[in-house]
Amino acid sequence: MRNVALRLAYDGSDFVGSQWQTQGRTVQGVVESGWRELTGEERRFTFAGRTDARVHAQGQVVNVRTESELSVTVVQRALNALLPPDVAVLDVWEAEADFHARFWARRRWYRYLVDVSDVPVPWLRSFVVHVGGGVDVAAMHAALQVLVGEHDFAAFGSVGSGGETTVRRCFAAGCDWVDVAGRQVLAFDMVANGFLRRMVRTVVGTVLLVGRGRLGVCDVEQILRGCDRRLAGPSAAAHGLILMDVVYGEVE
Amino acid sequence: MRNVALRLAYDGSDFVGSQWQTQGRTVQGVVESGWRELTGEERRFTFAGRTDARVHAQGQVVNVRTESELSVTVVQRALNALLPPDVAVLDVWEAEADFHARFWARRRWYRYLVDVSDVPVPWLRSFVVHVGGGVDVAAMHAALQVLVGEHDFAAFGSVGSGGETTVRRCFAAGCDWVDVAGRQVLAFDMVANGFLRRMVRTVVGTVLLVGRGRLGVCDVEQILRGCDRRLAGPSAAAHGLILMDVVYGEVE
Repeated sequence: MRNVALRLAYDGSDFVGSQWQTQGRTVQGVVESGWRELTGEERRFTFAGRTDARVHAQGQVVNVRTESELSVTVVQRALNALLPPDVAVLDVWEAEADFHARFWARRRWYRYLVDVSDVPVPWLRSFVVHVGGGVDVAAMHAALQVLVGEHDFAAFGSVGSGGETTVRRCFAAGCDWVDVAGRQVLAFDMVANGFLRRMVRTVVGTVLLVGRGRLGVCDVEQILRGCDRRLAGPSAAAHGLILMDVVYGEVE
Repeated sequence: MRNVALRLAYDGSDFVGSQWQTQGRTVQGVVESGWRELTGEERRFTFAGRTDARVHAQGQVVNVRTESELSVTVVQRALNALLPPDVAVLDVWEAEADFHARFWARRRWYRYLVDVSDVPVPWLRSFVVHVGGGVDVAAMHAALQVLVGEHDFAAFGSVGSGGETTVRRCFAAGCDWVDVAGRQVLAFDMVANGFLRRMVRTVVGTVLLVGRGRLGVCDVEQILRGCDRRLAGPSAAAHGLILMDVVYGEVE
């Protein structure tokens, strides 16, 4: 049986999340029904990263085992024709027989976009969160450096009930201005081998407190060491978050 | 009577245009009813640039004559609270008594965003138009240079029935990659003292033919000289267009 991998982009605005749920429209549900329409196969897709309601992706990776003999080019074109406009298949390739989009992932890159101008730009509002008031970008960038390395991130998120570890390795983190079509907005980037539930959003919510002078960089260090979710700041809104990329194979 | 100017941003997706029409939701209608709610005044707002259905703005300028004594700060805050989320007031200031948002404008800057990747990114689809297939960016940039200067732009747009001139001065034009939150898309920029109806969209539609090798740069020169709308390419879709800025006063 072939194992086919797909790279997806989606606008999370009208989804209750990436993963199949008993109620509501999910990315998985939409992709699986597109697949059924295309191949006649009833299949479960494996997602590299679980994204919450309203979270976007431009580099989600999924895989599916199939008996279909359609070429990867045909799969991509046909799925893009069948899928609704808020999901797109950016790439399709033959994966190794035991490739698993979630377990094989080495790095995931999430970005969170914040507009700190006095008044938000309306046409960006589905993926840029408006946070009024001045922020100290250098302080926020410094606070994010505290998170780089291998740490127990229990202060910033949770895992399922399985008693799984909350230790993750963060390869890079930072905060900088990015241009969104002529408008300067703040991007919070985090690259790690994995993320706890709501981890990026809680990191951003906490780091924004640093940006406003309500916490210092060493407070973030203490929050991280405390391993207690109640010490961190509130989770930032979902719709500013984008799963940018998932990296497989050997990475230095 | 005071003359108050406002800088507006809006997401054009759910508007039939900027200007009041007999049917449909317009930016002017929404702003005027917000103004009525705030001040009790029934007023007509003057817009610097008329934008079509689905065209966005992040720097539209309007003005209104008022007897209200509310400070500009209060006007901005109150209107932002009253207006729907797809319109925002970025700035409010006291204008000179005879300031007219349209007639006093010296320069207008429009930007058109195009995604030329094989598959479009869904979360950008309300303001970036997807155009499949490769394009020659240098050729498109060169074609846009032909338009810089004072020209009769009749080939690229129309005016009302009033026999108004179709001559405009284009101060700058160009095509380059811009980053939209980590994604490279093409921005077509045009700055001019004024624009004919659909001018930017027709320029973009024509220049895209150059990008695909179906027209040469000298063809664009001939189209411009021909002053005949039928010679130019099709108008590009409305939702890729953004009114970026309007400039007043002395400009070099």
